[in-house]
Amino acid sequence: MYDFKEAYQKLKPILNETNLIYSDYFSELTHNNVYIKPENLQKTGSFKIRGAYNKITKLNDEDKKKGIITASAGNHAQGVALAAKENNIKAVIVMPESTPMIKVDGTLKFGAEVKLFGKTFDESKDYALKLSKEKGYTFIPPFDDPDVIEGQGTIAIEILEDLKPDYILVPVGGGGLIAGIAKCAKTLNPYVKIIGVEPLNAASMQESLKCGEVVKLDSTDTIADGTAVAQVGGLTYELAGDYVDDWISVSEDEILETFIELMEKHKLIAEPSGILSIAASKKVRFFNKNIVCVSSGGNIDMSFISQLINKGLYASGRIHRFKFELQHAPGNLKDLIEVFANAKANIVSIYHDSLAQSSRFKNIKVEVTVETNGKAHLKKLTESLIKEGYLKN
Amino acid sequence: MYDFKEAYQKLKPILNETNLIYSDYFSELTHNNVYIKPENLQKTGSFKIRGAYNKITKLNDEDKKKGIITASAGNHAQGVALAAKENNIKAVIVMPESTPMIKVDGTLKFGAEVKLFGKTFDESKDYALKLSKEKGYTFIPPFDDPDVIEGQGTIAIEILEDLKPDYILVPVGGGGLIAGIAKCAKTLNPYVKIIGVEPLNAASMQESLKCGEVVKLDSTDTIADGTAVAQVGGLTYELAGDYVDDWISVSEDEILETFIELMEKHKLIAEPSGILSIAASKKVRFFNKNIVCVSSGGNIDMSFISQLINKGLYASGRIHRFKFELQHAPGNLKDLIEVFANAKANIVSIYHDSLAQSSRFKNIKVEVTVETNGKAHLKKLTESLIKEGYLKN
Repeated sequence: MYDFKEAYQKLKPILNETNLIYSDYFSELTHNNVYIKPENLQKTGSFKIRGAYNKITKLNDEDKKKGIITASAGNHAQGVALAAKENNIKAVIVMPESTPMIKVDGTLKFGAEVKLFGKTFDESKDYALKLSKEKGYTFIPPFDDPDVIEGQGTIAIEILEDLKPDYILVPVGGGGLIAGIAKCAKTLNPYVKIIGVEPLNAASMQESLKCGEVVKLDSTDTIADGTAVAQVGGLTYELAGDYVDDWISVSEDEILETFIELMEKHKLIAEPSGILSIAASKKVRFFNKNIVCVSSGGNIDMSFISQLINKGLYASGRIHRFKFELQHAPGNLKDLIEVFANAKANIVSIYHDSLAQSSRFKNIKVEVTVETNGKAHLKKLTESLIKEGYLKN
Repeated sequence: MYDFKEAYQKLKPILNETNLIYSDYFSELTHNNVYIKPENLQKTGSFKIRGAYNKITKLNDEDKKKGIITASAGNHAQGVALAAKENNIKAVIVMPESTPMIKVDGTLKFGAEVKLFGKTFDESKDYALKLSKEKGYTFIPPFDDPDVIEGQGTIAIEILEDLKPDYILVPVGGGGLIAGIAKCAKTLNPYVKIIGVEPLNAASMQESLKCGEVVKLDSTDTIADGTAVAQVGGLTYELAGDYVDDWISVSEDEILETFIELMEKHKLIAEPSGILSIAASKKVRFFNKNIVCVSSGGNIDMSFISQLINKGLYASGRIHRFKFELQHAPGNLKDLIEVFANAKANIVSIYHDSLAQSSRFKNIKVEVTVETNGKAHLKKLTESLIKEGYLKN
């Protein structure tokens, strides 16, 4: 039923090569050989082109002539749009009305027709399905479809051509990517172990596997928007159950910290969902293995990046805000600042407000934000502040 | 005198492969075939390891035993430190006392000894030269040295192995990188044209070539700190004069815009100096040529990145702050905001201060910061604001 090799033959000419990147840094940190499969460097900035393109190649001529449709404001939209363009067929993408113009334009530039419809994503999707029936467009599902799964699975062929991995770590949203990779990798080499990685706050596949059926999460509150999927697919659920060996969940802070590390150490940008597998490499409990972390995508708003950096610096202790109450008398602020200077911590900002309410009338509130060199440095600084009586132990 | 091939034979085993990256985006934008030579992905995050390593291999055993020294708080420091480590020799790096700990640690982790000395960089350098004499350490100059230049030039061998380029665009600080690349490339293929790229605010090589001798700039006020060099070398000046075909200067805004584009389109981080050549590709006056842009480095503070992003979004019109004076009456702010909503511009912040001084007593000042989709969108929005009487033409 699944013929990954055939799919790959058709896909290969249109893909960017995303050769494995060996990571000195994460290898040393995790005591394994860590490789990144950089699908953030894939065309359209994510792996989604693979599944969409594969699905299109299987359409008959009449369906190709009619065109395709989907509902998405994310990576799937761009993947479908470019896949249609490469096949010279029409694509219609339905997006919620509130979609930022930058995302609309990002899809328009691949030649797709964009329709803004619906207040919510579900309304957009219903509209896309309605148009699909009316106009005869083929609907391209984002994950729960054997052709889409087959396309995503071709990533495993490339990984196994480059390396003999012991483990492949894969981010999981709706499950299309891991279903494809797991099935394909195990077909080629049954000894490869597959680990699924979900955001702690949106672990819909793990929840479903625990319950023994597909369940819907009440909330998916995570910065990893690409994997914030409340309900996985029926098909992807079956495949994940059959072929995935283990599961890791990562917290928001772990995503943020790893986001910063990937930028600093590898000069690479990945979106939070594309960070999941790399963050998870720090939580495995084995050593000296070849691990491949699939980084699924890199599409991220520029204004969001600076927020992520700031949050990431907080998460890793590289920026920290201390709050103090000082007696309001000359010299007291200077004495406090001296502790920071002696600890070689750069002060980013000081907020010193003599009008702010305080527990004692004569005290003032002072907030000092500092840059440190990481958690060890922050700990040392905190200890000095405790020793000098500014903080309680 | 220069034997680049021999240098490359020694270097190759210790280098990261930095294969050319073809850029769809910049190719389309510039009507050329644009390739990036990503030395930001080189070990230590810049090309500097090449020159330092090459210099070390030419030392005799006695000098190797004594060790090496340099003064730097930048990419050269890390390059020298790792080159020494790879050769199992001692390295001492002198940095100004004010150097942030994160840079100190970045060098310490390669096993070098770091000495913090001097209020200014010149004081650090004098101290390094003094120690060099006292202890017999070999001083490794950052650029004005034939062995260092020979090492940097090996980049040209790699480029010419991958591609037959018409032009190579190279960032210029002290001139070591371009001296090496120009000399080496012309030796291998005299038809390759070399273009030097400097920050408009720190064009010390162009100024020297104009004057017919090495001159010192009064100021080097640029975000491209790695190329903020007031005075180029004597040797690099000679080689640049002999082998460089043309020059381009880029403004701070051009650097910022390109920084954002490289992140968005290629998911790659380069430091501002590593952006210069890519920014310059937009200013060439030829078409349909193979252009290689050498991206020299990617070392950049995380907190600096978010500043750069914000500045870059301003520079490209993606964020814009409008200032208005409104008559202080109910409904007026709503009417203004409606113009933004109709133009589909996302409002980031509104500053509305009825106490701020204004030219007319009853007016209030309003500042509206918006996100747009780029310069075309900003122009349309501005025209609507003019049409509605909020701005003057």
